[in-house]
Amino acid sequence: MSCYKQEDLIKMVEEANRLTHKGKVADYIPALGEADPSTLAVAIYTGEQECMYAGNIEERFTLQSISKVLTLALALMDRGTDYVFQRVGMEPTGDPFNSISKLETSVPSKPLNPMINAGALAVTDMLVGNTVEDKLERLLKFIRQLTGNENISYNPVVAQSEFETADLNRSLCYFMRQHGVIESNIEMLINLYTKHCAIEMNCNDLAKLGYIIGNEGRDPNSDQTVIPLEIARIVKTFMVTCGMYNASGEFAIKVGIPAKSGVSGGILGSVPHGVGIGIYGPALDEKGNSIGGLRLLELLSKQYNLSIF
Amino acid sequence: MSCYKQEDLIKMVEEANRLTHKGKVADYIPALGEADPSTLAVAIYTGEQECMYAGNIEERFTLQSISKVLTLALALMDRGTDYVFQRVGMEPTGDPFNSISKLETSVPSKPLNPMINAGALAVTDMLVGNTVEDKLERLLKFIRQLTGNENISYNPVVAQSEFETADLNRSLCYFMRQHGVIESNIEMLINLYTKHCAIEMNCNDLAKLGYIIGNEGRDPNSDQTVIPLEIARIVKTFMVTCGMYNASGEFAIKVGIPAKSGVSGGILGSVPHGVGIGIYGPALDEKGNSIGGLRLLELLSKQYNLSIF
Amino acid sequence: MSCYKQEDLIKMVEEANRLTHKGKVADYIPALGEADPSTLAVAIYTGEQECMYAGNIEERFTLQSISKVLTLALALMDRGTDYVFQRVGMEPTGDPFNSISKLETSVPSKPLNPMINAGALAVTDMLVGNTVEDKLERLLKFIRQLTGNENISYNPVVAQSEFETADLNRSLCYFMRQHGVIESNIEMLINLYTKHCAIEMNCNDLAKLGYIIGNEGRDPNSDQTVIPLEIARIVKTFMVTCGMYNASGEFAIKVGIPAKSGVSGGILGSVPHGVGIGIYGPALDEKGNSIGGLRLLELLSKQYNLSIF
Amino acid sequence: MSCYKQEDLIKMVEEANRLTHKGKVADYIPALGEADPSTLAVAIYTGEQECMYAGNIEERFTLQSISKVLTLALALMDRGTDYVFQRVGMEPTGDPFNSISKLETSVPSKPLNPMINAGALAVTDMLVGNTVEDKLERLLKFIRQLTGNENISYNPVVAQSEFETADLNRSLCYFMRQHGVIESNIEMLINLYTKHCAIEMNCNDLAKLGYIIGNEGRDPNSDQTVIPLEIARIVKTFMVTCGMYNASGEFAIKVGIPAKSGVSGGILGSVPHGVGIGIYGPALDEKGNSIGGLRLLELLSKQYNLSIF
Repeated sequence: MSCYKQEDLIKMVEEANRLTHKGKVADYIPALGEADPSTLAVAIYTGEQECMYAGNIEERFTLQSISKVLTLALALMDRGTDYVFQRVGMEPTGDPFNSISKLETSVPSKPLNPMINAGALAVTDMLVGNTVEDKLERLLKFIRQLTGNENISYNPVVAQSEFETADLNRSLCYFMRQHGVIESNIEMLINLYTKHCAIEMNCNDLAKLGYIIGNEGRDPNSDQTVIPLEIARIVKTFMVTCGMYNASGEFAIKVGIPAKSGVSGGILGSVPHGVGIGIYGPALDEKGNSIGGLRLLELLSKQYNLSIF
Repeated sequence: MSCYKQEDLIKMVEEANRLTHKGKVADYIPALGEADPSTLAVAIYTGEQECMYAGNIEERFTLQSISKVLTLALALMDRGTDYVFQRVGMEPTGDPFNSISKLETSVPSKPLNPMINAGALAVTDMLVGNTVEDKLERLLKFIRQLTGNENISYNPVVAQSEFETADLNRSLCYFMRQHGVIESNIEMLINLYTKHCAIEMNCNDLAKLGYIIGNEGRDPNSDQTVIPLEIARIVKTFMVTCGMYNASGEFAIKVGIPAKSGVSGGILGSVPHGVGIGIYGPALDEKGNSIGGLRLLELLSKQYNLSIF
Repeated sequence: MSCYKQEDLIKMVEEANRLTHKGKVADYIPALGEADPSTLAVAIYTGEQECMYAGNIEERFTLQSISKVLTLALALMDRGTDYVFQRVGMEPTGDPFNSISKLETSVPSKPLNPMINAGALAVTDMLVGNTVEDKLERLLKFIRQLTGNENISYNPVVAQSEFETADLNRSLCYFMRQHGVIESNIEMLINLYTKHCAIEMNCNDLAKLGYIIGNEGRDPNSDQTVIPLEIARIVKTFMVTCGMYNASGEFAIKVGIPAKSGVSGGILGSVPHGVGIGIYGPALDEKGNSIGGLRLLELLSKQYNLSIF
Repeated sequence: MSCYKQEDLIKMVEEANRLTHKGKVADYIPALGEADPSTLAVAIYTGEQECMYAGNIEERFTLQSISKVLTLALALMDRGTDYVFQRVGMEPTGDPFNSISKLETSVPSKPLNPMINAGALAVTDMLVGNTVEDKLERLLKFIRQLTGNENISYNPVVAQSEFETADLNRSLCYFMRQHGVIESNIEMLINLYTKHCAIEMNCNDLAKLGYIIGNEGRDPNSDQTVIPLEIARIVKTFMVTCGMYNASGEFAIKVGIPAKSGVSGGILGSVPHGVGIGIYGPALDEKGNSIGGLRLLELLSKQYNLSIF
């Protein structure tokens, strides 16, 4: 894919950056509020040695909701699809990602999908391991393998900040435990959840992750299957139907790239068969997606014809 | 009120008891599931030495939601009306007593009234005291004073059983803490809440309680004000608009007695100016009210013209 | 009740009028938007020849939601309680008066009570008569009998204005027809509904209405029963639990007078056993109640000890 | 695509047909209730002269919700994307296709997407034409061009049956008119809507339709663009995110073919770049999708690797 040119990327980042002043950095988690809203960076990985990139590619950020993709993949590998989807649905929802109402009105009570908080918490509860540390270590090992970056870990300050302000997630957890969707100790679950949301990486790492998911789970360097084909496809499908919060439908039409965003401002993109995208732009729109990142993906999709539709 | 006759009461209990086989004993709290559904007892107190009664008047039961009336009275005495109603609303709701949806859709997020679980949990959080034990002891002291029964305490087995199955209440608490309605440690709050729900008494005690609330807070024996007039009226008004779960409207029309029910099968009735009623009948209808107790109150209201409407 | 003094009323109206600049005249119906927000008038009727009053007592206004009380009374007289309450519930709701959501989530689909729009439309559909004109004439005749005012009719300009902007009510009607709650031609029903909402009277008329409802249906002049006792009580009970939109609970606590408000700014009050109140103050608070009227009722309730609680 | 073999299709239809006894024919529209639940037919069109097929390919059925795809395409051609998406959203929803609640809770009130009833009614309202007949004729002409079948028309008996039982759709329409989403006469709109839902075709016609949508709007016979590229892609994307009612998410994962179902039991499938699918199987699952059709698509997707994911 020699078509991706550094100078084109730089131009597109410049254009997309004109929107960042309209967005707002997430501040419901104190530690996120310090990000610079004018930041916008992108890396594109096509399986070769190096990523194409533009912007400050070295800056690290926490995954936040992007980690939902990775816990889902690992839970599916740990437990199989039957087990996972007995507890979590597959349907997109028009509600905000942190909503609880549908858990009350759905019969049986079951999170609609693994990309909203309720579903992601239930998925985290399925990870195999004896302790929080065990489970986190297994997840980190999995992510290090996917990115080829042995230094990946979580940011303890952000994790602690989220842990202290996670009452809404606790509310979701206890509601689900009442209905038998999860069974664990909730504080341990929130501990694990906030830590995996705080896993840090940069755009290069994210682009490699995206590449492997789009590449049906095969690592181009080792030529090994890191995520089983079927699971990579399931994950990619959720990225299309539910990946961009309750703006996923519009994103499918305007951009058409399987993607998952987080309130840190990161976006993971997985163009099938050969392109992984990592974006960081902490200024968010009102639905919680990187405002510059969305624009940048729209430009990329048009320029390089990346839509799956 | 010499009009109340023991033999009339016995007949009415017999008639109302014909409905009890249609009800079901609450079993979501394991310890409640052991009650005998055919039980039905009533005591009527008119300020004189003895209660009129029918049925096994000695049997003790836990207050469950009836305790919401008492914590509300004490919280209003502890904190004043402004403080309490900044945190809890005054409006009846068509939703079930344990519903969470309205907390999500209301702006600001605030429980609609103190008789649903969300509101009662917020009220319990307002009780003054340094520890759970302090607060519980103050509440028990208040109830002992109201009933004139120094032996009143809580049932630790029921309290423990409820504590272990209180995940829905925990969910409500964390949701409210997220929105600043409550601020405490949730496990301590649930500890206190489940203990006051497990306070035990018999129908005589309940009838005395009902008498004082209907008597604008004055104890007929000591001639002292145990609940300030304004607070007794507020509590009585909530018993009319929200006291019988989401059957309160129908109850106001068919019976018209200020009342509060609990899932143990108890019902507290406060006829203004001179009649307190205590009922115990653990077979419940589908909304959680004592099925025999409802019928009995309807018969009493017609026979003695007790409706406030 | 010689205690009611004209000069006291005038003072209370003056005090309550200080709030009217904070309210807003209803403008969703164009014809209502022309009212003068600084108007505030009250009449009190105690069964004697003349009303006590303060403010411009001659000004006429449309009943709007106050008419729900009268159609309910007539429908209960026409059809009996069983028929009516099979189709409409008795429970207060925390939702706004024009909400449709509960019709979708309730099983079976049934309006929660006759004071919200859905319920009032269903009640209007129950009135006996061959044509819209028949039914309206019967209702007017009933109201003329209650008020002793043969000149009472409806305002055709307001009725037409409401008819043209009644799409939300049409939506409620078709939803209910889908579920078998109503069966009629919807345009005819809306025609009748908007006309009875547009029935006009002044505060004196309203006070007489309120007197009879509070007097258990008996007209003090003719000493005849105009509304059967049981029905007058039912109506009065709904005024307590649901009469002031979703501020009914707060009103019960702060004022405690059975009352029904309309978005025209009228309030009907029925103090049991001897006092009818008619108020007109078109400046509304955000829940749709007359802001000056609410304050005035609070002052009246305190001054003359009118709360039923 | 010579890979598609008649005998394979027949085997797959046989296998899928084992599920049809578990489904139920739609009966909320009386005229649909007469369909034979054991019917299952499929046609596959790959741009060549003839369709591959299995089952009774001649049987005609009404499009029902499948017509939403065609009105959306025509409205987009008539009005442009800006106009259409100002009035209708792009987001999938977890609610049933005929739900009204989200119209009440969304600010501004706007149907979430064009595949639920509210959105489809709003889209139908956008079709250009002076009269219902004009608009319907334009739509039929468009569909005849897409299918190459000049005989396609609507079933007047089904249309009339739906018109008479369309109160829920009327309710949706009036609710939207209240909020300015639609402006027309509602009876005319329901007239047009029920007629386009009653457009009849067989599986062959449906397969040709599906082919052109998947082929980016180009007719393989005439080599003309019948639907502009951008619009064909938008339509196809909605088929993925919202095409199978509130089972769209699960369908994307298990089958992965852009598809739209109707309560008649029809399913339109558009595999990108070269395969159109038409299915008819009137036995429905509880979400309103053809139970045999779903299974058949799953078998086809696996056998021929048709998933876009």
